[in-house]
Formats: sequence, C-alpha cells, structure tokens
Amino acid sequence: MAITLKEVAERAGVSRSAVSRTFTPGASVSRKMRERVEKAAADLGYHPNALASSLTTGRTKMIGLVSNNFHNPFFLEVFDLFTRGLQDRGLRPLLVNLTDVTDPQSSVRMLRAYSVDGVIVASSTLPPGFSRAFRDAGMPVVHSFGRYSENPHVDIIGIDNIECGRMAAHALLERGYKSVAFMGGPERATSTQDRLTGFRDALSDYEDVSVSYSFAEDYTFDAGRAEMQKLLKADPAEAYFCGDDVLSIGALSAIADAGLSVPRDIGIVGLNDMEMARWENINLTTLHQPIAEIIEASIEKVTSTLKGAEQEPEARLFPCHLVERGTLRRIS
Amino acid sequence: MAITLKEVAERAGVSRSAVSRTFTPGASVSRKMRERVEKAAADLGYHPNALASSLTTGRTKMIGLVSNNFHNPFFLEVFDLFTRGLQDRGLRPLLVNLTDVTDPQSSVRMLRAYSVDGVIVASSTLPPGFSRAFRDAGMPVVHSFGRYSENPHVDIIGIDNIECGRMAAHALLERGYKSVAFMGGPERATSTQDRLTGFRDALSDYEDVSVSYSFAEDYTFDAGRAEMQKLLKADPAEAYFCGDDVLSIGALSAIADAGLSVPRDIGIVGLNDMEMARWENINLTTLHQPIAEIIEASIEKVTSTLKGAEQEPEARLFPCHLVERGTLRRIS
Repeated sequence: MAITLKEVAERAGVSRSAVSRTFTPGASVSRKMRERVEKAAADLGYHPNALASSLTTGRTKMIGLVSNNFHNPFFLEVFDLFTRGLQDRGLRPLLVNLTDVTDPQSSVRMLRAYSVDGVIVASSTLPPGFSRAFRDAGMPVVHSFGRYSENPHVDIIGIDNIECGRMAAHALLERGYKSVAFMGGPERATSTQDRLTGFRDALSDYEDVSVSYSFAEDYTFDAGRAEMQKLLKADPAEAYFCGDDVLSIGALSAIADAGLSVPRDIGIVGLNDMEMARWENINLTTLHQPIAEIIEASIEKVTSTLKGAEQEPEARLFPCHLVERGTLRRIS
Repeated sequence: MAITLKEVAERAGVSRSAVSRTFTPGASVSRKMRERVEKAAADLGYHPNALASSLTTGRTKMIGLVSNNFHNPFFLEVFDLFTRGLQDRGLRPLLVNLTDVTDPQSSVRMLRAYSVDGVIVASSTLPPGFSRAFRDAGMPVVHSFGRYSENPHVDIIGIDNIECGRMAAHALLERGYKSVAFMGGPERATSTQDRLTGFRDALSDYEDVSVSYSFAEDYTFDAGRAEMQKLLKADPAEAYFCGDDVLSIGALSAIADAGLSVPRDIGIVGLNDMEMARWENINLTTLHQPIAEIIEASIEKVTSTLKGAEQEPEARLFPCHLVERGTLRRIS
C-alpha cells in the first residue's frame, strides 16, 4: 500500500497542507517544518507523486516553452529567466525545440503528447499560425515577443516593434547621419516587418536623408555577417539599424574585415540588449528590450489562465529605450 | 466515456500499434497511415493521454536536463542538441536550472517532484555530490562533461580533461612559447583541476619553459576578462591556455583593451570549440570538444537504462583535437 500524505501529516504532527507545501517546489515552508515533515516521510517511505497528483487535479504543472532559434545567444537569457520563473512557482519547464518543425499541426501533436498545461511561445519569427493552432487545440497560450494586435488571437507579451523602428530612426537622425538603412531579420518575420514600418515612417519627412533596407536570412551571426558583406560591396549607408543584436555582431565582424572602423566609418544600432551586447569587445549601442519583465509577465499570464481566469486575449507591450555604447557616433 | 486507442484502431481499420505509433513523438509511421489514424481519432474525439499512459507504464518519458550556467553560450548548443535528441526519441526534455541551488538534497526533491524517468547532468562544475544524490534517490543518471573515473558512481560521458591539458601544453611548446600559463575556470571544478594537471605534467620536463597558473571565478566572459586584466598588470606569459572558450573571449577583450595584439603579443588557446569560436571576429584557436557525440552518447546511455539494461556505471571519453585559427602564432 502506498503511504498517503495524511499518514505523513499524522506522524509529523502537522497539517496536511504543511506536508503538501513541503513537497511542492517553490512553496513556502519553514526549515523546521520541512525537516519535521521530511523525517516523517523518510520513516514511512513516502514519496510525493506528481503523476498521481496530476490525475486528481487534471494538471501536469508542465509549461511548454517553445523556441525555434538556438543560434541566437539572446535565448540563453530567455531560457534562464523562464526556467527560474517557472521553478519558483512550482511549475515544470518543458523545452520544445521547433527548429526543424515547419507544420503547426505536428507541433500541436507534440505538445498534446507532452500533456502540458500551457504553452509559452518565445519567438518573434514563428508564424502566428503556431500559437493559434495551440489555442485551437485547447491549450492556454502566451506568445512572448509576438506581434501586437488590438484583438489578438492569443495573449501577446512583448514590445512595440513599430515604435522601436521609430526610436532607431530618431537615434540615427539625432546623430546627424544623412544616409541610413535597416538591415532587418528574416523578411517574413512580423518583428522585421514592424521594425521596418516604424523606421521608414519616422524618416519619411526627412527629404535630405536617404533611406534603404534589406533583410538577413535569419537572426544569426552568420546571416548578419553575410548581409553586411553584400551591403559593403555596393555603396553602404552611413549607419545601420540592425534587426537585433546578433545580426549587429555579425555586421560588425564584416565591417572590421573590410578594414572599416565603427563608429568612425559606419554606425550600428541593434535591438535586444542581450548580455553579450555589454561585453566590452562588442560594446553595442542598442535598444534595450526588457527581457526579464516580458518573461515575468508571460509567466504571470499563463499562470493566471491555469488558475481559471477566463479572459479575452490581450496584447501587453513594454517600453524600450536606447542604451548608448560604442557603435554610434555621439550627438554633436 | 473516454475514447480508447482500440476504438480508434477499429474505426481506422488499422492495428493498435499503428495508432500508438501515430501518437508517439518520434515513432515511425507512414504519412498515409498517420492521416488515416488522425481522421479516425478526430471523428471519435480521441486524444492520446500521456498521463494515463504514464500510470500504465510507470514512466513519464521525461528526462531532466540539469544545468547550472546560463551565462556560457556553450550551453545554447548543448540545449539545442539535447532537446532535439530527446524529442526524436519521443522523450520530453525538462530543463532544470540549478543556478541558485547549492544543496544536492533540494535538487533531489525538485527532480522527485518533477517525476522524471532519468537525469542528464550537463555540467563540468557541479560537484559530484549532485549526480550521486540523484542516483541514491533511485534515478538513472548520466553526467555529461563530468570527471573521468575508473569506477564512477554514475555514468560519465565526456572528455579526458587531463589529456586536454597535455594537448594544450604541446600546442604551446610546438609554437616555441617559452613562458606559458593556464588561466583556468573555477578552482573547485574538477575540469579545472584535471586540465591543470595535464598541462603541468606535459611541461614538467621542459626546464627552459616557465609555467604559471591562475583561476577565473566562473566560466563566464566577465570572469575571463577580469582574470586577464589582473594577469596583465604583472608580468604576463607569452601564451595562455584558457579554461574554456568563453573565458578565452573574455581574456581577448582584456588584451585588446590593454593595446596588445593577439597572437603577436600574447597567444590564447581555448577549449570547447563552441559555435562562437568560429565567428570571424573571434576566430579562436581552441581544442574541439565533440559536443554532439557526447550528447548523443549521453542520451543513448540514459535511454538504455530506462529500457532496463542494468549495468555498472562507466566513464566513456571522446577524443579532442586542436582547431587552428587565429589566436596562436603559427608553427615556424
């Protein structure tokens, strides 16, 4: 016969809730209480059973964390913050790698087979069809770093990419650049489209500033480097707003190889402010995306949905700001 | 009443095994068969239930992937390869972040509450007490990137760190450096100790070569940079074997700031050959650790243990080799 939580509570002389909290990751329990409960549990040979508990509650406490880019160091921070945030709440982060998965339905099958309680899609490039397919399959979904919409199909937590495009444009205008360009991420990504829209919009009134744009294949170092190599062969702009930080670092590498100096010959501004942007040998001027706040809000949102709070999906945006480092010339 | 697998098989006119394979991630099933089964399942409203299946088999198909360093870009590749390898086998990767966890028993509690079938510890710095505690709690454990031992307490899949220290020493000797040093990872880490042992051992016969060593606080960019800044204030060596690639990149940053040139003034050789080492603006000469092979073997090992193959724990090592790039002078 399996030992029950009740028997452990009786032996330890504590409440059943105290036993439950002792074996719930992240739940609050005093050290003294924990020791007392663990001793009783060890004496009786009791092991908490997440499976059995799942059957009672209908919950697995697993949250699928969906990513499709493991070549962008940005995601190392995302994984760190997500796993810690979920762990702190007694939830279990199941990492779902969609690198090779192109069909929303097969990822729905995968997540169904995984029995997750909810899904956090952490991507600015995964087509909206994926998060919609998860929702249609009955899973609570939050799309972190997704595209803003007034009436979104799923909850969106992210930034205003159009506004970021504008901010980048103004940063370049303020610094007196007369020929500027957007070197975006993959053209199909909504983040790319929106950043371009804001960038062009902010520059449309400045007739003396020439504006161009192009797209890298992916949010990777190699793609950023290859795209900048192409740009340098023609008549490069004075300054580039790069789709994100890893593209910026690829671009900086191509510029250095061409014997040019940043910011003397070419200016670069990125987006994300990932840890590496602060590395002194990169020292990237970039738009800070509040990663920690976005992830915290995404976890809060998926958790509140699990608790049964039925709400219309909404988009929540966090403000970005420019972090001045060494890759744009100073305002004169 | 819940729809059963048998009913789906009957409606689709296929075997129960075909239905089972259709809903098992990674299992082989023809596209035609899948379509037939999925149609029948949709008609009947059947959803495969991993929870129910877990109760029958006593298996959750979850593997805990334990890491304690999310500041080293090396782990982005590790996470990518692990998640894909587990997914391909229909296993579910649960990411366990031990960044703030210092007590083996509390991580055992966490993994117990997570109901994982097995644990892969991916770390060269986590004390052996952790993997031993998991084993003592009855979980199959593989320690990837762990320390070699003839009679290990758990399965170890990794590299011969002592031999790597020797290889680094020989690379520096061959290039004629007369004053060499080891700038290791954290002193307490077994990987640091072993790499130092091999390095000093290989150099012990060379009386005309001066050897020194020191340790960085952590396997991070910041720690590598801070340690090299300290070293540059005294009388720096001609060439450094750095504990790993991210430490090397930190060291390169400090060297550049000091107005010195690599490899003209100082040589650097790293270890790992992570993706970033190949980035053209880093171009790090380094010892290649066969990450993909180590991860594949680790997954194979934990899978075979799940299948019930009872074996004595063993250590399996993969060979490393030097990748010549731009941070050591050429052999003259």
